[in-house]
Amino acid sequence: MYNDKVMDHFMNPHNVGEIENADGVGTYGSPVCGDMMQISIKVADDKITDAKFKTFGCGSAIASSSVATDMIIGMTIDEALDLTNKQIINELGGLPAVKIHCSVLADHAIKSAIYDYAQKT
Amino acid sequence: MYNDKVMDHFMNPHNVGEIENADGVGTYGSPVCGDMMQISIKVADDKITDAKFKTFGCGSAIASSSVATDMIIGMTIDEALDLTNKQIINELGGLPAVKIHCSVLADHAIKSAIYDYAQKT
Ligand code: FES
Repeated sequence: MYNDKVMDHFMNPHNVGEIENADGVGTYGSPVCGDMMQISIKVADDKITDAKFKTFGCGSAIASSSVATDMIIGMTIDEALDLTNKQIINELGGLPAVKIHCSVLADHAIKSAIYDYAQKT
Repeated sequence: MYNDKVMDHFMNPHNVGEIENADGVGTYGSPVCGDMMQISIKVADDKITDAKFKTFGCGSAIASSSVATDMIIGMTIDEALDLTNKQIINELGGLPAVKIHCSVLADHAIKSAIYDYAQKT
């Protein structure tokens, strides 16, 4: 059901946790499954220098957030805002259709963290 | 959002894995979130002597299956068939309403493992 890349990011997820003194923190709850995702970011010179996630969500949510946080570290705020859910899934090498909603969790929490950052600055 | 017992069973789940030469194996996929649960059981003299679960599901699914497998080990087949989803949630000390569907995963996979055992014997 899941490819090797998904399994690898599930077993050894990157960027798990919460950044202390984060510049932006976003949370998002899935209307589909009820799971929550929190993403915190650190920003310097308009670039995302660090990102971490915390979730009680499923393996697909963990794998999606692991690659998504990898992807946004080093991006400018504008680039991260342009990141689509489709790009996250592509980077993962695909997800079963019934699990697409889990990757949306990562996507929305990133946007929410960026809005939080924008509101603060 | 989650009580200490749920967190404890999520962080240190009991009975994770798959029983070799199981007497019954059941899988169930949630129509809500798309997650799958597999439960395998060992039966002797009409009693469940061992139970293990495997899932890619969320923290609530893991905690529910952890307590549910604990509960059925030592039960007769009839007792395990009578186990309700509500009893699993009570044993966990409660789950948020949006996460009830995750405990159903454990309940249904147990029933499915028992049917598999019944069909084989
Ligand atoms: S099922 Fe809830 S995050 Fe995947």
